[in-house]
Amino acid sequence: MRTFSFIDETRGAMRDARAEGKTIGFVPTMGALHEGHLSLVREAKREADYTAVSIFVNPAQFGEGEDLDRYPRTIEKDSGLLVSEGVDLLFLPAEKLMYPEGNDTRVVPGEVASHLEGAKRPDHFQGICTIVLKLFNIIEPDIAFFGQKDAQQFAVLSKMTKDLDIPVDMRECPIVREDDGLALSSRNRYLSEKERVAAPVFFNSLMEAEKVVIAGERNSKTIKSLMIDIISRERGAKLDYVEIVDANDFSIIENLQSEVYILVAGYIVDTRLIDNVRIRIN
Amino acid sequence: MRTFSFIDETRGAMRDARAEGKTIGFVPTMGALHEGHLSLVREAKREADYTAVSIFVNPAQFGEGEDLDRYPRTIEKDSGLLVSEGVDLLFLPAEKLMYPEGNDTRVVPGEVASHLEGAKRPDHFQGICTIVLKLFNIIEPDIAFFGQKDAQQFAVLSKMTKDLDIPVDMRECPIVREDDGLALSSRNRYLSEKERVAAPVFFNSLMEAEKVVIAGERNSKTIKSLMIDIISRERGAKLDYVEIVDANDFSIIENLQSEVYILVAGYIVDTRLIDNVRIRIN
Repeated sequence: MRTFSFIDETRGAMRDARAEGKTIGFVPTMGALHEGHLSLVREAKREADYTAVSIFVNPAQFGEGEDLDRYPRTIEKDSGLLVSEGVDLLFLPAEKLMYPEGNDTRVVPGEVASHLEGAKRPDHFQGICTIVLKLFNIIEPDIAFFGQKDAQQFAVLSKMTKDLDIPVDMRECPIVREDDGLALSSRNRYLSEKERVAAPVFFNSLMEAEKVVIAGERNSKTIKSLMIDIISRERGAKLDYVEIVDANDFSIIENLQSEVYILVAGYIVDTRLIDNVRIRIN
Repeated sequence: MRTFSFIDETRGAMRDARAEGKTIGFVPTMGALHEGHLSLVREAKREADYTAVSIFVNPAQFGEGEDLDRYPRTIEKDSGLLVSEGVDLLFLPAEKLMYPEGNDTRVVPGEVASHLEGAKRPDHFQGICTIVLKLFNIIEPDIAFFGQKDAQQFAVLSKMTKDLDIPVDMRECPIVREDDGLALSSRNRYLSEKERVAAPVFFNSLMEAEKVVIAGERNSKTIKSLMIDIISRERGAKLDYVEIVDANDFSIIENLQSEVYILVAGYIVDTRLIDNVRIRIN
């Protein structure tokens, strides 16, 4: 694996790979890699000839009072994992390289970014769109891989890609979970032992929701009430939102049809977690 | 010359050219082509192996009450001119293709777009950044060519390119003028015969300004007063602004140094014209 911190050398390597006729798969990350990220890397290796990964903790997507400073940085371990997976290139830029002083052009998403995570975290998706476009412009991948856990992020980035005619295929890959259902997240390491026991409550609420949908329930309000009940019974868990959206455009729906995400966000004490299931309605 | 109205066929042709090892030069236009545009095409042909031109009257860069509806459309004549110049590809998309319903991701420029044209024409530069990024993503040029007449536009687009790591070389080409100094513009055809006689006043004011700068004047206020005087003496001319900016970052300066643009914008009756000179200070 070649590791680069600068843009020109990264571009050079990418262009060499392309000149050899290789297709490029790309996995942008903020590091603190877990099996969720590695599943994206494996999918990239299956689908493309050359796999590039970036690690960059993007300050522009963290809000005031969020966990930018304490976000886990585990570069050496991450690098070892990526070598084991057979990644070809790791792009590891410094903050000053990606956001030198005076850098102020921004990619601003529309409607799809206005609610849910977008409402709770102002400028979050603007920060994500901007960094992902920058990374796309440096790596110039054919296919990019993202985890379903950040479902709205994927919807926002897919919309950006479509709206701006960005020549990258966008792939959403399934959530990887612990044995008790907790969605893998770099933020899970913030959880104390006791909090860790409570954390699967969000997943459990999603499973109960999925059960009633499979049994025929189509009313969004009913399903959300059921989830809210489950989460309210878990001490230490605090609900942020539950919502059900159309999988195509992430619009909030009253009645379930075609394909939907059921989404949940909440806190386990101080740690904010999100999770979702995607369900095709028959 | 191949003319395409759809994205996939355009991308296909561009990728074929690239696969042959050709470098791509690109000239984005709104049509109503004149010698200014053709000078960009000739420069593209000198510098790159394959020349692509786009014609698209971009609604997103026109404000309320501006001249979107009456903006000249002369596609057949334009197309003939581009064939004569030996252009390889003309991209001629419909409005619905570039802005289908729901398209709402935008590229928003920062500080460099906040004053002068950016202040007079809200969202103008956001519209320009967004369409140019879209066109870059479709054409994927190595070099793109722009006219110096729209000097702030070039500064804003260069800043976008740098801030977003867009892999395109940006070239600013000299203003082409009529014999009496009037900068070529598609909007000059709005001028009546009488207005046309008055129109060079903006150029004349720039020439007087340049003269005093060459003679040693470095005070911005003095130079601007001189220009304002000249323009005020021309009946039918109405000043919008004169300003002097640093050529590197387009910031307004009090004292001339290194390299500057002297900029003027105004109306000849109802037609808004802009012009500028770029001067290196010794």
